[in-house]
Amino acid sequence: MIGAFDSGVGGLTVLKEFLKRLPRYNYIYLGDNARAPYGEKSQEEIFNYTKEAMDFLFKKGCRLVILACNTASSQALRRLQREYLPKHYPGRRILGVVRPLVEEMGGKKDIKRIGVIGTRATISSRVYGIELSKNDPGLKVFGQSAPLLVPLIEEGWTKKSEGKKILKSYLRPLKEKRVQGLIIACTHYPFLYKEIVRIMGKNCLVDNPGKIVALSLKDYIKRHPELNIRESNNPRCWFITTGDAGRFKNLGEKFLKRKIKNIKKIAL
Amino acid sequence: MIGAFDSGVGGLTVLKEFLKRLPRYNYIYLGDNARAPYGEKSQEEIFNYTKEAMDFLFKKGCRLVILACNTASSQALRRLQREYLPKHYPGRRILGVVRPLVEEMGGKKDIKRIGVIGTRATISSRVYGIELSKNDPGLKVFGQSAPLLVPLIEEGWTKKSEGKKILKSYLRPLKEKRVQGLIIACTHYPFLYKEIVRIMGKNCLVDNPGKIVALSLKDYIKRHPELNIRESNNPRCWFITTGDAGRFKNLGEKFLKRKIKNIKKIAL
Repeated sequence: MIGAFDSGVGGLTVLKEFLKRLPRYNYIYLGDNARAPYGEKSQEEIFNYTKEAMDFLFKKGCRLVILACNTASSQALRRLQREYLPKHYPGRRILGVVRPLVEEMGGKKDIKRIGVIGTRATISSRVYGIELSKNDPGLKVFGQSAPLLVPLIEEGWTKKSEGKKILKSYLRPLKEKRVQGLIIACTHYPFLYKEIVRIMGKNCLVDNPGKIVALSLKDYIKRHPELNIRESNNPRCWFITTGDAGRFKNLGEKFLKRKIKNIKKIAL
Repeated sequence: MIGAFDSGVGGLTVLKEFLKRLPRYNYIYLGDNARAPYGEKSQEEIFNYTKEAMDFLFKKGCRLVILACNTASSQALRRLQREYLPKHYPGRRILGVVRPLVEEMGGKKDIKRIGVIGTRATISSRVYGIELSKNDPGLKVFGQSAPLLVPLIEEGWTKKSEGKKILKSYLRPLKEKRVQGLIIACTHYPFLYKEIVRIMGKNCLVDNPGKIVALSLKDYIKRHPELNIRESNNPRCWFITTGDAGRFKNLGEKFLKRKIKNIKKIAL
């Protein structure tokens, strides 16, 4: 079984791509909605919350967990891999979303100016700029935090003219910097993928982060047969939230673009 | 000393009025920013978090604490008054914001159609409708949740045309119901007080909630000398947050409209 974790429902845009591109596996999705959003929290809190989520998912039998959340990936992943996994769950794996997105965008030879859009926590961590520069110190990376997008998406305002104007205002500085590629560094934003592509125009490559992470996972599973993640004849997907199950279902179905059954509320 | 508590910085719009109308007292303001917003949390969580905050404030010597937060007032106040205070801090008092606002608006004889604007948690609790009906079952109460206003205010987008349009969209249904009075049931929104008054027009009374709560507190202190809340010759105000002190200062100064010193970060 494969686990996917996010502070809320945003990670479902990643799970959607897993279900499309790796449909033969069993999945368990955990959203820590009761404590979302993680963006304002300290690194220590994000680490502790994410660790509790990992405990839950590994105890449920996951061999591999994806942090489908930029905040947890940038604030907690490395420490979990170093301090937590070897001690508590040797042989299991935790992967994040940052590295696949960096490798994909950083690997394009003709892209030298890259925009990154995400929550304040992700942008101010500069994690994408740091990782991209490791591959190619000549890259110019421009971060843009867009804190209103998550509430706009969750409240269903993105189709209204006010919502579209706010999205445009956030993307304008990146267009002015003439970025050739844009990394969508928040798992909520793929909900606006088509709109973002349209605004950025044909001279800017916009990756679909869910797709990139799913293709990277497919490759990872192939290269790590020792993880023994088995395909299922009757693949299933379970949904767990620490928040309100009804709200998770309503909002989650918009992100996943399919019906959500089997929601269970738990406390971490 | 008087305590004021909110899940975040919104309660500073109430504290501002305390400092203006009751300037001779010492205050301590506690914002639980690390766990904010409370809106999505369960009643049990809100009760437990608020109880921890009360422990902190009473241990610091407060005789009286105001829950300057609609969510905590509607979800936790009554149980705190019944179960917690008599057992742990007999003789101390906790007051909320709902009752003063209800008494003020409900006491106006010519106002029969009342609008209430607040977060989703406050509006779906129907607390204002229930309390207003107790005084006068003939009142018509119309609730409108406006979940985007808090992030818009915190991100400083309310002066931009997109922000103004969103505020107008939220108020439109209440205007269409021809409400004669509007209760601002979220301590963030007084930040938009002038704009709200302008949009609602001259046929609708809009109370400034901070002012109402401050006048009610003034009256309460006068009627309860046994609480022994002493005026100070050198009145001071302390600020405590569970979140990032820098962000509390930046955002808080906008709400309080004065400089904030003496910020301390604590864990509850």
